[in-house]
Amino acid sequence: MMKEIYDLLILGTGPAGMAAAIYAGRYGLRTLIIGKEVGGTTNLAGEIENYPGFTGTGIDLMKKFEEQAKAFGAVFMVGDIDKLEKIENGFRVSVGGKKFEGHAIVGGLGSEYRKLGIPGEKEFLGKGVSYCAVCDGNFFKGKTVAVIGGSDSAAKTAIYLASICEKVYISYRKEKMRCEPINLKKILATKNIEIIYNTQPVEIVGNVRVTGLKLESSIGRKLDKNLIGIDGVFIEIGSTPVTRIFEGVGVELENGHIKVDKEGRTSVEGLYATGDGTNNPFKQTITATADGALAAKAVYDYLNFEN
Amino acid sequence: MMKEIYDLLILGTGPAGMAAAIYAGRYGLRTLIIGKEVGGTTNLAGEIENYPGFTGTGIDLMKKFEEQAKAFGAVFMVGDIDKLEKIENGFRVSVGGKKFEGHAIVGGLGSEYRKLGIPGEKEFLGKGVSYCAVCDGNFFKGKTVAVIGGSDSAAKTAIYLASICEKVYISYRKEKMRCEPINLKKILATKNIEIIYNTQPVEIVGNVRVTGLKLESSIGRKLDKNLIGIDGVFIEIGSTPVTRIFEGVGVELENGHIKVDKEGRTSVEGLYATGDGTNNPFKQTITATADGALAAKAVYDYLNFEN
Repeated sequence: MMKEIYDLLILGTGPAGMAAAIYAGRYGLRTLIIGKEVGGTTNLAGEIENYPGFTGTGIDLMKKFEEQAKAFGAVFMVGDIDKLEKIENGFRVSVGGKKFEGHAIVGGLGSEYRKLGIPGEKEFLGKGVSYCAVCDGNFFKGKTVAVIGGSDSAAKTAIYLASICEKVYISYRKEKMRCEPINLKKILATKNIEIIYNTQPVEIVGNVRVTGLKLESSIGRKLDKNLIGIDGVFIEIGSTPVTRIFEGVGVELENGHIKVDKEGRTSVEGLYATGDGTNNPFKQTITATADGALAAKAVYDYLNFEN
Repeated sequence: MMKEIYDLLILGTGPAGMAAAIYAGRYGLRTLIIGKEVGGTTNLAGEIENYPGFTGTGIDLMKKFEEQAKAFGAVFMVGDIDKLEKIENGFRVSVGGKKFEGHAIVGGLGSEYRKLGIPGEKEFLGKGVSYCAVCDGNFFKGKTVAVIGGSDSAAKTAIYLASICEKVYISYRKEKMRCEPINLKKILATKNIEIIYNTQPVEIVGNVRVTGLKLESSIGRKLDKNLIGIDGVFIEIGSTPVTRIFEGVGVELENGHIKVDKEGRTSVEGLYATGDGTNNPFKQTITATADGALAAKAVYDYLNFEN
């Protein structure tokens, strides 16, 4: 059997992976890009307002990326990545029984938002349900929204949304926010934020778009009001970076994310990482895209000037 | 006189500055963005192929940025920035006699390519004259080009272009390349690169586009051939980051560039830097754009959660 050896295997077909493919193609690297779904999390974004130079849906933006990557010669493959191994002079990736080898890897498998798992969450995604206030907050100007969660990230989300929205509820299952004290202080000083402690959401309701949130007591009490009227709900209960595949080759993590330098270099020689799965400080399509360009340049330099 | 105090003053109206303005606007920061020319170096790019999600000219891309930044409330001001000062609780910027104050600064004044200063250089910019092989190399597939310079960066440019072009000349005024030895070795092993030592370009000639390069001896000898036929010339004689304004408030530099962390933080509290003027490793429109988004987020956090 002829073995195909690529210069670069890209794992992940979100914005980071496809940007890496665009740049790798321009650098003349033989590149295979493998992922479950072209577009990744950006596909879920609905309208995108904050990708500089583009207006339209996340899906349309990702289609443009795909066209550009293909135009520069990247080969796409759809599949589940089972395993990554270090071999002499590179890496081997197993995808549904098939094996591919490459001299370098760019990993960008993203991160998965933790879900509530309640009725309405999936149905109203992009129609009032969001996991990213920086991305979607502006669509709720002057409206009423709820934030689910009690972390510092949930607190900051509520403070940010309060500057845009008419009213912000926070629903948290415990009796005290677990954010930094200064942020709790800020929340308490913000008139249009109301914290509803000891509650958990049980259903997101609506017609075409979200109209309300059903809550129940998390401590077995009866609530005064178990349906609150809202236009949107921001679910801020954390996310899980997809790192398992890379842990198999011993990559160093930091707070559960892959530790990278400014060019996407990880602790494993020849393995670069990009996007939401890394410890980079901001999880946006634009930053993931730049990560991809940076990693492709770093791979080109690594293969041509450092080996 | 009423004094206007902004949350954020952005210095520089290139991609980094405008991306910062887009994100700052979304974060609700009162933002003034000041620069000489909307678009910066990206305006010079001609057709852009390597900004993921966009195809068109650099000027069109920068117009989109400008529209988005304005849509989110950024106030634009055209002018030369004379001075930046640290004041209590922020900074003061002088622009042609006027003064503006802000609690934080995002600086993105870019970098200026060093020019040859010979006839044809300006006239054929974007028509065969380029300062960025990663940006423009693909437009010269199968063609003949010249690289001007002898640095490691010039050497890498020639090696990269040799993988795309039919033939690559290097014209260098000294008798030995000053690149890393391994890169000289690579050049010597690459059949379609020819180094013409001890020469300097005196004119770039052409009609609509570049057709040739006139060289003269830099050591007073007579050349066999003083006009070489080329389709493009890549000028790789360095660039100068615009840092003077920021040095006035004592910002730390690294190799002449403003030293920043992953979020654009400099050594001066409240001062963030982005784009080509920083020590970030890759100088591309896409990376400068992400820098801007990152810095705006860092400023929002700084003003809201760290002060």
